[in-house]
Amino acid sequence: MADDNTIFVGNKEVMNYVLAVTTQFNEGSDTVDIKARGRAISTAVDTAEIVRNRFLKDVEIEDIVTGTEEVENEEGETSNVSTISITLGR
Amino acid sequence: MADDNTIFVGNKEVMNYVLAVTTQFNEGSDTVDIKARGRAISTAVDTAEIVRNRFLKDVEIEDIVTGTEEVENEEGETSNVSTISITLGR
Repeated sequence: MADDNTIFVGNKEVMNYVLAVTTQFNEGSDTVDIKARGRAISTAVDTAEIVRNRFLKDVEIEDIVTGTEEVENEEGETSNVSTISITLGR
Repeated sequence: MADDNTIFVGNKEVMNYVLAVTTQFNEGSDTVDIKARGRAISTAVDTAEIVRNRFLKDVEIEDIVTGTEEVENEEGETSNVSTISITLGR
């Protein structure tokens, strides 16, 4: 289950997610997980890099885990999608 | 410098890179680095996931490192691009 420390990255502009992660840290979180799948994986990496290079220089990448999930479309066909989880910590 | 064990992922269809990585292992490499930047990062993760889930089940992700590179366009303006390096090993 995702708790409050998880930011799900989708297809919005990257700065939306940078703001969300930065806010989590500023509210006292020690770690924030950035999760994404499919094409949004690139944006998840952008988010982590922008947060630690530009906004919170004491934040480091503690772990990066990739995986594969099965997704079902409206016709009931399944396909695989890659996932990423980037754990940032200070 | 990139050696023979490095596969650079760009904007070709993912199976091109899956084949390249699998070939490296079949020719005797113990580790293969998959590198990408920008939008191709998602394809790099897809490549790693497909190789280890479908083709070489004894291969594991040993390390994932992200970074930021400065790139210059034709007008001489610089911008930042995220990078990823995924090390697969058996």
